[in-house]
Amino acid sequence: MDRSPQSPGMLTDRYELTMLDSWVRDGHVHHRATFEAFARRLPQGRRYGMLGGLGRLLPMIADFGFDDVEVSWLREQGVIGEQTAAYLRDLRFTGDVDAYREGDLYFPGSPVLTVSGTLGECVLLETLVLSVLNHDSAIASAAARMTTAAGDRPLVEMGSRRTHEQAAVAVARAAYVAGFASTSNLAAGHLHGVPTVGTAAHAFTLAHATEEAAFVSQVAAQGTGTTLLVDTYDIEEGIRTAVRVAGPELGAIRIDSGDLAEESARARALLDSLGNTRTRIIVTSDLDEFVISALADAPIDGYGVGTRVATGSGHPTASMVYKLVAVADRPGADAPLRPVAKKSAAKASVGGRKLARRRHEDGVLVGEHYDVLDHDAAVELAPDDVQVAVVRGGRVLHDPSLDEARATARRALASLPPAARSVAAGEAHLEVGATARDLPDPSSTPVPASEGAPA
Amino acid sequence: MDRSPQSPGMLTDRYELTMLDSWVRDGHVHHRATFEAFARRLPQGRRYGMLGGLGRLLPMIADFGFDDVEVSWLREQGVIGEQTAAYLRDLRFTGDVDAYREGDLYFPGSPVLTVSGTLGECVLLETLVLSVLNHDSAIASAAARMTTAAGDRPLVEMGSRRTHEQAAVAVARAAYVAGFASTSNLAAGHLHGVPTVGTAAHAFTLAHATEEAAFVSQVAAQGTGTTLLVDTYDIEEGIRTAVRVAGPELGAIRIDSGDLAEESARARALLDSLGNTRTRIIVTSDLDEFVISALADAPIDGYGVGTRVATGSGHPTASMVYKLVAVADRPGADAPLRPVAKKSAAKASVGGRKLARRRHEDGVLVGEHYDVLDHDAAVELAPDDVQVAVVRGGRVLHDPSLDEARATARRALASLPPAARSVAAGEAHLEVGATARDLPDPSSTPVPASEGAPA
Repeated sequence: MDRSPQSPGMLTDRYELTMLDSWVRDGHVHHRATFEAFARRLPQGRRYGMLGGLGRLLPMIADFGFDDVEVSWLREQGVIGEQTAAYLRDLRFTGDVDAYREGDLYFPGSPVLTVSGTLGECVLLETLVLSVLNHDSAIASAAARMTTAAGDRPLVEMGSRRTHEQAAVAVARAAYVAGFASTSNLAAGHLHGVPTVGTAAHAFTLAHATEEAAFVSQVAAQGTGTTLLVDTYDIEEGIRTAVRVAGPELGAIRIDSGDLAEESARARALLDSLGNTRTRIIVTSDLDEFVISALADAPIDGYGVGTRVATGSGHPTASMVYKLVAVADRPGADAPLRPVAKKSAAKASVGGRKLARRRHEDGVLVGEHYDVLDHDAAVELAPDDVQVAVVRGGRVLHDPSLDEARATARRALASLPPAARSVAAGEAHLEVGATARDLPDPSSTPVPASEGAPA
Repeated sequence: MDRSPQSPGMLTDRYELTMLDSWVRDGHVHHRATFEAFARRLPQGRRYGMLGGLGRLLPMIADFGFDDVEVSWLREQGVIGEQTAAYLRDLRFTGDVDAYREGDLYFPGSPVLTVSGTLGECVLLETLVLSVLNHDSAIASAAARMTTAAGDRPLVEMGSRRTHEQAAVAVARAAYVAGFASTSNLAAGHLHGVPTVGTAAHAFTLAHATEEAAFVSQVAAQGTGTTLLVDTYDIEEGIRTAVRVAGPELGAIRIDSGDLAEESARARALLDSLGNTRTRIIVTSDLDEFVISALADAPIDGYGVGTRVATGSGHPTASMVYKLVAVADRPGADAPLRPVAKKSAAKASVGGRKLARRRHEDGVLVGEHYDVLDHDAAVELAPDDVQVAVVRGGRVLHDPSLDEARATARRALASLPPAARSVAAGEAHLEVGATARDLPDPSSTPVPASEGAPA
């Protein structure tokens, strides 16, 4: 059985344990440190990212650790020595985490997650933090574009079969956060409370002697308000049969093939001519934000999206990184933290802990920057700050419902100027950097690319 | 905690339960049926697919079902009626499965998985079968291309942070099947026995006062045979420091940025001039099969591949479908099965159960077709048949080790003509269809596209 018996600690790259092993031996393991997760850039053509996965990640951070069997295995494999084994047996994350809200937007450089604690407990979180945020944010970011393209028409997430069976549950959850109305995935309904929908596949029709017999069976079980799939044989004949079987109260028909603009127009005319003016038309079949945009004028009442939402619509990962930005040079709570940064040209990072700030004009998001904090200052986050204190002393303080995350996403998308909500390829709406007063050389201060004049 | 408490049955699209509910009411649930998984086409430019995930899937099929809490939830949600709830409480898969071996190749139309049983037990497997095969086959197919491009140089899978935390474990497993030497993912080591490797990240160097102090600590913990990451500040300086600290026995250096052809050549010259002729050079940083091919002449001893293997190198899903191909019109073991197929132009399927056949010339795979079987004939698979009897009466009969799956993959890749192993974009090496004698109209017989003259 593949019910993931391993602890969250095992969902980790070996090099984190190898580094830990050195640090246990040389004492660095107890030095205070701060790590940050951020994206250096957005996927090509994307104007914003949407943060997903925070609500899945935080309980796993609180539960982070290894059981005895796992520690023994790591020891036997030579990954760690005995001293590190002892350290891992007792390990619990006891540090602090600040984060952007799930459903909020992020841009290149936004410090979406800040982890503070000892070097040992912080370094081990790298893979888990990035796996969850990169996957779920890729899905949420793609789903947000589809939500925007669909306008008032509801979207159903139905991509489970196109991705790993557990990733599928997270896909349904992230798409719902980003504005999808429902999912086909039952586990997402059971575990996360995402509304589930679904009626029938082509196999249902094929299994009956005739299409009519299939529709009769489905209506008998589910009532006339159900959705009948009409394209197994011939769409026009299928619609006539559906109306004959279900009558004027037929809830919806689904079309899963052909030219959807053309087929939906033909279906609407036929349904209306048969008196079924209230029967809705749902379309599925390789939809994404671009196809949905192109179908805006077609008489369609809802979309089912599969492959493209489950695979991030061309960008299956959000490419966030998790970087050490400050560390103490001796153990102890009173040791000062020293900002650190990697220097290589393509992968440079900015040292020091960051406090994000946003600027709105007439309700429109026109700028985001961060202040690099004096590392020893206590961070007191205000309720309207971009970052939220989500974990303190290892305890999760922030546990919004999925509907609250949906509201965050809705507000965030509404704060973008119309051009930044476009699904057409474009530059990131903002670039996020430090303010001038935090940098020694004002000429190196990044300015939001489109601040004041959003592209 | 996100330890996937749900049963495999819940990793399912709601419409399967909705269909089941109708079939429980109208009696179809007990009719015999056969479903097949296959890919209508390969991702654009791909010449073959490699089957992944079978070893993960079969135990979940054997364990398929729902617990009482889940059945009650489905009932409360109105997904199913009481009669179906009773059916689900007792549900176990009792049917048969035939499949291609994990690690074997497939082409458009190859019947990679055949499920036979009652309509009820077979229809419920759709989502789970496709999630596992589509995800793991996408990874294996991409990884096989990287394996081919790398030749004798070992590949490390290190993409865990770029994908869902549980998908990451399956990625490591599938890449190993396809020929990768090892993974960074500890859970894949613990659960599946994939060899794990890993030494240090940039954070390790940054956390120490100097690069030298970091290397001293790492060598003290892991010995001189370790791999030192030399590009945190300046690569040349990093290499000199690494050699000074570890001496002539330094196992390897890793370069994670810059022009890897240039940097590796410079690093090789410098290492040799310092007397470290046996110190290996490992490179990482946005590698894929194309970059690896381009680096064939660079003095590189091994590759670490992350994002691109974990996301299928541009094709994160294998687009397999699971289709009803035969069904009985009454219940009972003696009822004859009727072949069925969907007629729509773009999504047509071929009815009837299929037996795959391959043709080799001088050890080269030059053709694959299937015979559509007389549906009532017992299928006796021979040991050298393409398909294997993997489940009989709900019991898993086929449980090869990962090393056996690797051997299958190695043999399969070796059976391709050189052009079909190329990573350059091209047509599928073969198209798989029925033989003439199985089709009423010989003019509709698909012929392998490149049979006898592989592109």
